[in-house]
Amino acid sequence: MARKPVDVANPSGSKPGGDPPSWRDWVDPRRAGWLRPLLLFVPATILARLVGAPGPWLFVLSAVAIIPLAGLIGEATEELSDELGPGIGGLLNATFGNAAELIISMFALFNGLDGVVKASLTGSIIGNILLVLGASLLAGGMKHRVQRFNRTAAGVGSTLMVLAAFGMLVPAIFHGLVGEKVAHLEHELSLAVCVALMLAYALNLVFSLVTHRDLYNPKGEEKHEDGPGDLAGDGPGRWRPVILLLVSTAFVVWMSEILVGTVEAASEAVGMTQVFVGVFVVAIVGNAAEHSTAVWMAMKDRMDLAVGISLGSALQIALFVAPVLVFVSYLRAEPMDLLFTPLEVAAVVVAVLIARMVAEDGESNWLEGAMLLLIYAILGMAFFFLPESVAEAADGLAPAAHGQAAVGVGR
Amino acid sequence: MARKPVDVANPSGSKPGGDPPSWRDWVDPRRAGWLRPLLLFVPATILARLVGAPGPWLFVLSAVAIIPLAGLIGEATEELSDELGPGIGGLLNATFGNAAELIISMFALFNGLDGVVKASLTGSIIGNILLVLGASLLAGGMKHRVQRFNRTAAGVGSTLMVLAAFGMLVPAIFHGLVGEKVAHLEHELSLAVCVALMLAYALNLVFSLVTHRDLYNPKGEEKHEDGPGDLAGDGPGRWRPVILLLVSTAFVVWMSEILVGTVEAASEAVGMTQVFVGVFVVAIVGNAAEHSTAVWMAMKDRMDLAVGISLGSALQIALFVAPVLVFVSYLRAEPMDLLFTPLEVAAVVVAVLIARMVAEDGESNWLEGAMLLLIYAILGMAFFFLPESVAEAADGLAPAAHGQAAVGVGR
Amino acid sequence: MARKPVDVANPSGSKPGGDPPSWRDWVDPRRAGWLRPLLLFVPATILARLVGAPGPWLFVLSAVAIIPLAGLIGEATEELSDELGPGIGGLLNATFGNAAELIISMFALFNGLDGVVKASLTGSIIGNILLVLGASLLAGGMKHRVQRFNRTAAGVGSTLMVLAAFGMLVPAIFHGLVGEKVAHLEHELSLAVCVALMLAYALNLVFSLVTHRDLYNPKGEEKHEDGPGDLAGDGPGRWRPVILLLVSTAFVVWMSEILVGTVEAASEAVGMTQVFVGVFVVAIVGNAAEHSTAVWMAMKDRMDLAVGISLGSALQIALFVAPVLVFVSYLRAEPMDLLFTPLEVAAVVVAVLIARMVAEDGESNWLEGAMLLLIYAILGMAFFFLPESVAEAADGLAPAAHGQAAVGVGR
Repeated sequence: MARKPVDVANPSGSKPGGDPPSWRDWVDPRRAGWLRPLLLFVPATILARLVGAPGPWLFVLSAVAIIPLAGLIGEATEELSDELGPGIGGLLNATFGNAAELIISMFALFNGLDGVVKASLTGSIIGNILLVLGASLLAGGMKHRVQRFNRTAAGVGSTLMVLAAFGMLVPAIFHGLVGEKVAHLEHELSLAVCVALMLAYALNLVFSLVTHRDLYNPKGEEKHEDGPGDLAGDGPGRWRPVILLLVSTAFVVWMSEILVGTVEAASEAVGMTQVFVGVFVVAIVGNAAEHSTAVWMAMKDRMDLAVGISLGSALQIALFVAPVLVFVSYLRAEPMDLLFTPLEVAAVVVAVLIARMVAEDGESNWLEGAMLLLIYAILGMAFFFLPESVAEAADGLAPAAHGQAAVGVGR
Repeated sequence: MARKPVDVANPSGSKPGGDPPSWRDWVDPRRAGWLRPLLLFVPATILARLVGAPGPWLFVLSAVAIIPLAGLIGEATEELSDELGPGIGGLLNATFGNAAELIISMFALFNGLDGVVKASLTGSIIGNILLVLGASLLAGGMKHRVQRFNRTAAGVGSTLMVLAAFGMLVPAIFHGLVGEKVAHLEHELSLAVCVALMLAYALNLVFSLVTHRDLYNPKGEEKHEDGPGDLAGDGPGRWRPVILLLVSTAFVVWMSEILVGTVEAASEAVGMTQVFVGVFVVAIVGNAAEHSTAVWMAMKDRMDLAVGISLGSALQIALFVAPVLVFVSYLRAEPMDLLFTPLEVAAVVVAVLIARMVAEDGESNWLEGAMLLLIYAILGMAFFFLPESVAEAADGLAPAAHGQAAVGVGR
Repeated sequence: MARKPVDVANPSGSKPGGDPPSWRDWVDPRRAGWLRPLLLFVPATILARLVGAPGPWLFVLSAVAIIPLAGLIGEATEELSDELGPGIGGLLNATFGNAAELIISMFALFNGLDGVVKASLTGSIIGNILLVLGASLLAGGMKHRVQRFNRTAAGVGSTLMVLAAFGMLVPAIFHGLVGEKVAHLEHELSLAVCVALMLAYALNLVFSLVTHRDLYNPKGEEKHEDGPGDLAGDGPGRWRPVILLLVSTAFVVWMSEILVGTVEAASEAVGMTQVFVGVFVVAIVGNAAEHSTAVWMAMKDRMDLAVGISLGSALQIALFVAPVLVFVSYLRAEPMDLLFTPLEVAAVVVAVLIARMVAEDGESNWLEGAMLLLIYAILGMAFFFLPESVAEAADGLAPAAHGQAAVGVGR
């Protein structure tokens, strides 16, 4: 079990050692493991599959099953990274932090559901910076009048998000200018943008793990290591996180395969578009564990961690998961590009800008959290009302109508 | 007569008690009531109507007549809210603060002039955050080298404006994506966005009147109450503001009816589009009283009030007046939506972003004020040169050409 | 030789007097004059022209020759402005600061290469705020952990850049709304916007040279004048900078004529579009001297100068050079407008926003510099992949396709 919750992208210390355990510690979502009971959905999903349950049921069961599994991956990663030290550990954390989203998206990618892949990338980004950060600021702000966090760290993170949003904007504008005629140029541009995003990601790791580590480990909090703990102390315990990581990843793969295979049936059953399901359902499922940690940290007034988790996770999706998916798509017959729909681009741009505005003064209050949630709600409504035909055409599933719907700031 | 000028949306205290009255006090636009003589335009308008004067004359007379009436509504509201205490008083202030704009827009709404309604909403928003704030910063900055104000209050206000601008942007993008086909979906989306905007408005009231009141009432300025004053002391005086409110509102209704009825004739006579008249003329008329107060406060280096008046009024238009008009439009045969023209959306987005940039450091100088005014001028020129056909089509008056002109970031 | 490097638009003092000369001073690009040897390219270009060398060769030779000449103009201007005092000197600096770009653009303008003119304006702006500022922050940040600069000066500069970006955006939106039909209205709007931009420029000069001079001359650095120096002391020395200015300007005119005359041949030879050549090659050539100074200043941790040079130069292009070119174009048969392509507008808007985000906290680190460079790279790729047909149509060279490609947020 994870002993201390750590920011996914920017491992920060916590100070669990000093305080005597109080009732509050038992409600800590990770410690008390309130997600554990949801693991029962894993066998339930498998059973339902064997029985031949209808698609929508399988979709719901597998979605819920992924929530605690993603949490376990997170815990195992953190335990491992604690042992391996901040350098390799941070890298590990950064790589596996969004393993569930990556796995789900891979399945969607190789099922040709490019629209769902892009929708879930978009959904993960705006989910992290609007829903997770918003809920954190609101929950924290209801207990604390004003909360403060490190401006520089939040500033660097949010400026990087602007770079990522810009990386999504450029291919869209390009597509608006050149239309359908030169798909190969669009793919080359997407590839080039992906290289730039990955480079930004690598540089951010160097910044947060090497040159400016202390920004993310304020005031000596780093040195609270009370021994590696009894579990990891010696012998078989050392292998516990490795095994946990492998097993939970394997189950996420299994569940994801079921989830992606039933997206179509499920979205038809409830009358929502696949894009809406991708943006909201899949994205929320993959991030639930981090969400609860961030909110919990905010309520304990540890805003650096709360902000770090949400921004860090969004950065990882935008600068690491998205380029990896584009690179991997070259194993398919036809590669995926980075061309998002106008609504997706607008959603990410607005989310990034407003998150930056909220973060830039290093202070937060409940109203700022509520604003982020309201913008998430407005975006949700827009995606909800978007007709299937437009939503899918816009995502490249119906190439003929592509030029119609894709962002055309130009034209 | 209002004894202390109070920020419309965020009632803040002032400190008139201590200072001995100086010549400056007599030039205070509200105290000395320089707007009072303009009340003569009320009987003049009525007379002109009876005589059957041509439309353009009636337009000008009624426009000028509304300026002092709007000022009287503001004064009566403030007096009442002083007596009723910050809770209900603040609410009253917040509701009646832009009564004149609301009444004018209602008449335009039921005359089917949706384009003028939207144009005057846009005009009020950009007028408050570019013209009023710009003039305040310029006037104040010419007397004081650097002026300071509360960053947090200005920051929350300007972030809320971004939310409002975003509420205008989403329906426009949606329209660009789905085109003409699904008008009912657009109306549902508009309605949903309006609910979110109203919710944001309500939350802002809770924030500024309840949980974070002191942000808007710095350093004990709140407790300067030197008694409710002789006028309101007892007996008939108590009723003075109520009667003033009712009477001036009634006259605004009358004048507005004349104003809206002659918009078409007036815009034809001077060769300007109705949209231009809506964005600039109507918007300036409805806000003139607040304008002079804000500039006056800035010259006295009371920047918190000056910034509060302009941002507060813009917020009220965007988060309260606009949704109310959409809700009320459901009493018509066909409801109004929140679909603004691209130029309107761009104007509001740019105005909001630049106002936020100017406000975010809690400092201002004359050059920042001049920049806001220059941007207002550039926008004015763009609206001025826009041909009638495009301007009106874009506002939904010519449904056939609708898809041509409405915002289509997507296509 | 220039004794102290001074910010182009906002002349700031430096403190060369006190320090004993060290090896570092000899590497100062301006002092040691590493650009001097490049002057050999001037006779080489002339020789090649006489010999009748092919276009691409002439292009490269004249491009390189302009680099040291632009540096000489800068030095002469600074020397003159030192003598003339901050008032007239500042004005001189501000006017001649981008003389090379202005001259090159003039030739392109009268050769009807409007696309190249606009591309080089765009390129100069984004080059200054992404490439120059990015390289400065990166180089400085690799030597210094955190670097600080004057927030207010950087804030005013970047807000003015937003105004300039907005001045580019409005004609583009207007064009998207009205289409091809009303070219005369577009020209009137462009002209009006140009007047507003020039006014902003003039106000900025008043702000930085008169009312808020000390912002740009921190802490008494201004009074280090160790006499006007031996060169300028008396007699013929006084004329040295004037002669230097005239001669180097004359050669820039000559080289520019050759450069512009061979743009077409050169871009064909290397298979790049004229727009790409304009945005990147021409823009970099004209600014090389300033670039090296800014990076050098950043490495010496004199961030106010480094930031001032890059922002000041970008401002000058946007608020002075661009309007001047539009005004001058009325001497042609058909004037040039301010209608930029969507990609150009997006590039400037994004560059301005991200530069502002980086600058607003008055602190910088290497990662922020790297981010600016990455965004420059992404933009470079987008311009590189843009097909010739689209790039040129978008710039008005192919009027028939104009409506297709110009920014149409509306439609």
